[in-house]
Amino acid sequence: MGVIVVGSVALDSVKTPFGEVTDALGGSATFFSVAASYFTDVAIVAVVGDDFPSEHVDFLRGMGVDTSGLYTEAGKTFRWAGAYGFDLNDRDTIETRLNVFEKFRPRIPESLAKVEYVFLANIDPELQRLVLDQMKSPALAACDTMNFWIERKRKELLETISRVDVMVMNDTECRELAGEPNLIKASRRVLQMGPETVIVKKGEHGALMFKGDSFFSAPAFPCESVYDPTGAGDAFAGGFMGHLAKTGDTSDANIRRAVIYGTVMASFCVEQFSVNGMASLTGGDIEERFRQLKEVSKFET
Amino acid sequence: MGVIVVGSVALDSVKTPFGEVTDALGGSATFFSVAASYFTDVAIVAVVGDDFPSEHVDFLRGMGVDTSGLYTEAGKTFRWAGAYGFDLNDRDTIETRLNVFEKFRPRIPESLAKVEYVFLANIDPELQRLVLDQMKSPALAACDTMNFWIERKRKELLETISRVDVMVMNDTECRELAGEPNLIKASRRVLQMGPETVIVKKGEHGALMFKGDSFFSAPAFPCESVYDPTGAGDAFAGGFMGHLAKTGDTSDANIRRAVIYGTVMASFCVEQFSVNGMASLTGGDIEERFRQLKEVSKFET
Repeated sequence: MGVIVVGSVALDSVKTPFGEVTDALGGSATFFSVAASYFTDVAIVAVVGDDFPSEHVDFLRGMGVDTSGLYTEAGKTFRWAGAYGFDLNDRDTIETRLNVFEKFRPRIPESLAKVEYVFLANIDPELQRLVLDQMKSPALAACDTMNFWIERKRKELLETISRVDVMVMNDTECRELAGEPNLIKASRRVLQMGPETVIVKKGEHGALMFKGDSFFSAPAFPCESVYDPTGAGDAFAGGFMGHLAKTGDTSDANIRRAVIYGTVMASFCVEQFSVNGMASLTGGDIEERFRQLKEVSKFET
Repeated sequence: MGVIVVGSVALDSVKTPFGEVTDALGGSATFFSVAASYFTDVAIVAVVGDDFPSEHVDFLRGMGVDTSGLYTEAGKTFRWAGAYGFDLNDRDTIETRLNVFEKFRPRIPESLAKVEYVFLANIDPELQRLVLDQMKSPALAACDTMNFWIERKRKELLETISRVDVMVMNDTECRELAGEPNLIKASRRVLQMGPETVIVKKGEHGALMFKGDSFFSAPAFPCESVYDPTGAGDAFAGGFMGHLAKTGDTSDANIRRAVIYGTVMASFCVEQFSVNGMASLTGGDIEERFRQLKEVSKFET
């Protein structure tokens, strides 16, 4: 089994009401792979500059992440700087410097082309498609996106979406992609674009899953200490895909479980800066939050 | 058992992307009582003007609502006019004419003073307290509020809150009342203000319940056709209190069930204008949505 993720590896400078970090390890592929590493073999395909600290590569390898697809190019690593306001729901991007990421053309190493679970993190939909073209026998491919691509590369995005099994996005993106304010209707419209399953991430309000006629509403984990929401969506995707790849089971019941594991990983992610909240968990920590989410959503007739 | 509600009975003019109504039956006590009528005996205490159509009173009586506390004063009935935008989440109040409601001083008829379940809909917290003073032996009192009272009558509101068992409000109000953006922390702060239970309504994102160490996250019903959100919060409260009054059971498990019944009644409410969506339900309709919500939130370890 195992899962491969194609996305960004970045150095993030983040300011929240609780503190700030400079050039901390970030990027969609990073958050995804660290979360997924608790469930299954995970390989990363991304690019960094020659300024990228080797300790970060060591950290990823230490988490068991296969970095054979992490390319180093001459130049600087992708840098993102952002700040969150008082309630952590609004994020201001202060600066985005794509640097070496600007010319990123994902090449899947031969040794990874047969990985069966594929996650296309939020990158240009043309590059997402390029990844799909290189995979030999994907059992399940999922993709994320953002408003930028919905607005600027809609046609290419629709083409990518038509080729994946699972679409993962946040509620605002879902409404925008579908051109429909009702989130239930919007999600069903995205289903009609091709994917068998649509996952809508709603941050502090949990997540929704649509698969055929099945609809699942997952609670958020009741986090009292949210320090930095950066990467939560990718950590969610990492837990979700990691569990699916580990079990090789895409039944409705197991996809629901995967959504809960995604929720658990996102909850750890937001409790500290960068990937620190996910750096040293045990299987028991993860199972305990799974159990708590069961308790949180339980009611009897 | 039975439940009594003190609040507004109004004539609403509402415009949504799907249509509009003029002088339709509305008001917090109306939505609450119609929802609660499916569960238990319900009595309303409110005031209307001498222009209030008798057909509306007949309708409430037809639903089994005790209108002995619905007073008619010389003058016009409370009128509210509002409009909802494309996504139904933002509401503009076009006009509020309190009319006879401005001088409303709730008097509880002697015959109703012993009703054990009391709901104080969103009115001046001083009036809410005045109602509590008149109740002989409340088993459970709950209250709602709004930003207007949080900002203008905070001291009086805190006094009322300290005297009720259940505080019901929406997420924005909860954050504002507690002065805390994290909704989990904010809700726990409201618990410290006195009530044993805090319910946070989140519209399309469901509802949260806090009671001691117990925390429950309820899904929203997946409504695809939301026509008019007006009254949803009061319909929720009606289903919630109606179920509690019917069963006389305030255990954690039963309060969770009550939250689900609240969710069900709100889902019927928003599907049509005014109280039309709740006017002719059967017990089976309600149980079917309860069952669907169980399906929607189900996952196994």
